[in-house]
Amino acid sequence: MTYCVGLLLKAGMVLLSDTRTNAGLDNIATYRKMFTFVTPGERAIVIMTAGSLSVTQTALARLSEAAEDPDADETRSILRAPSMLAVAEMVGATLADVTAEISEKMERMHQSASASLIVAGQRKGRPMRMFLVYPEGNFIEATEDTPYLQIGEHKYGKPILDRVITPETTLADAEKAVLLSMDSTLRSNLSVGMPLDLAVIEEGGLEIARRRRIEASDPHFARMSHAWSDALRDAFQKIEGV
Amino acid sequence: MTYCVGLLLKAGMVLLSDTRTNAGLDNIATYRKMFTFVTPGERAIVIMTAGSLSVTQTALARLSEAAEDPDADETRSILRAPSMLAVAEMVGATLADVTAEISEKMERMHQSASASLIVAGQRKGRPMRMFLVYPEGNFIEATEDTPYLQIGEHKYGKPILDRVITPETTLADAEKAVLLSMDSTLRSNLSVGMPLDLAVIEEGGLEIARRRRIEASDPHFARMSHAWSDALRDAFQKIEGV
Repeated sequence: MTYCVGLLLKAGMVLLSDTRTNAGLDNIATYRKMFTFVTPGERAIVIMTAGSLSVTQTALARLSEAAEDPDADETRSILRAPSMLAVAEMVGATLADVTAEISEKMERMHQSASASLIVAGQRKGRPMRMFLVYPEGNFIEATEDTPYLQIGEHKYGKPILDRVITPETTLADAEKAVLLSMDSTLRSNLSVGMPLDLAVIEEGGLEIARRRRIEASDPHFARMSHAWSDALRDAFQKIEGV
Repeated sequence: MTYCVGLLLKAGMVLLSDTRTNAGLDNIATYRKMFTFVTPGERAIVIMTAGSLSVTQTALARLSEAAEDPDADETRSILRAPSMLAVAEMVGATLADVTAEISEKMERMHQSASASLIVAGQRKGRPMRMFLVYPEGNFIEATEDTPYLQIGEHKYGKPILDRVITPETTLADAEKAVLLSMDSTLRSNLSVGMPLDLAVIEEGGLEIARRRRIEASDPHFARMSHAWSDALRDAFQKIEGV
């Protein structure tokens, strides 16, 4: 499985993904699930993936190929699409096509394959937008009322987001929140694993403001994780029971 | 859905269930999911249920009928079974029978029904034991390494248990922990709802030491829930980012 989370805040967008992929418990590998598409000063897009690796790799390969093709027009390249809505539609159509093609192959074995994506980005002069694209190609969008989207193993890390995230949350707090949300997921579910990929798009920045890979050995992440555990245990001890 | 959690500690067992049942989002009802079977001074058993209401009600009705039948012998009554292992086997067999019967009816409509149970108890002179019984009737048991069992919507409330529960946890802390675990679940998942049923069996007590229904209006639960939110937000603010 996977855990990816994206926050859409007034100050910008914060995105975090894990990198664990598994085909059964005895076949575990590390694959990047975060992909960036940038024309500096014009647009910045981040796509995160969850689901069958054969589907996500093929879909991302097609999107990348079109984005790099100088002949691809605004109906094929997400770097030329007129709006983030058009980007989401293009990504949705690609994902739906790939899912259908691969599912057809797998049906002969009575198996299926699917994937979901988070697509976040901004085009110059337009608002930032963030979408969750379903395997069928349809999508929903993050709003002020629900300023975050998750794919994969989303339940463990939801309580912390529900408690601390509002559209006014600062980018520094937002980074902390997604990392703690991931920390809870890592502790409770083996199918989600380090290293992590973090990306930040600042409102109006039209570039990836920060992009980091956080390794399993990262001392800052380990310190934050321990401090959070200690803080939770402290808070737990101080709370009065019912 | 449902959320039920049971802790097996050195000092005793703490059990908590919600009461929400739904058939679609437009048909929500309150049903008890916690059932106690006690012969004071001889044995105390708590069963909690998750899954299809028709399965759990029928299974519990059969177990109750047998437990109240003065002619039911140790192969039929969980109040006469020679050990908690025999109780778990009896409950598993009943659940598997009911699941099979109801599934047969539902197959005609291409539907299925199933349920899982947590069975916790102690017989005089024997250790406390806690089992998670699967729809097929097989079961697993809580141990020192994994001193808790959950059924239903278990993911939201798992991180807090993973952080604070050990076999040495006191019963007062354990009550707090299961209520906070439930609180996280209630906030993030509409299919789990108040009121809650809490039961405590103390080691060697051979009775239900405490049994409470916590209503949605309970001021102590509301205070604890708010205090926990505040404590989490405080802790969040104090943690240094990565």
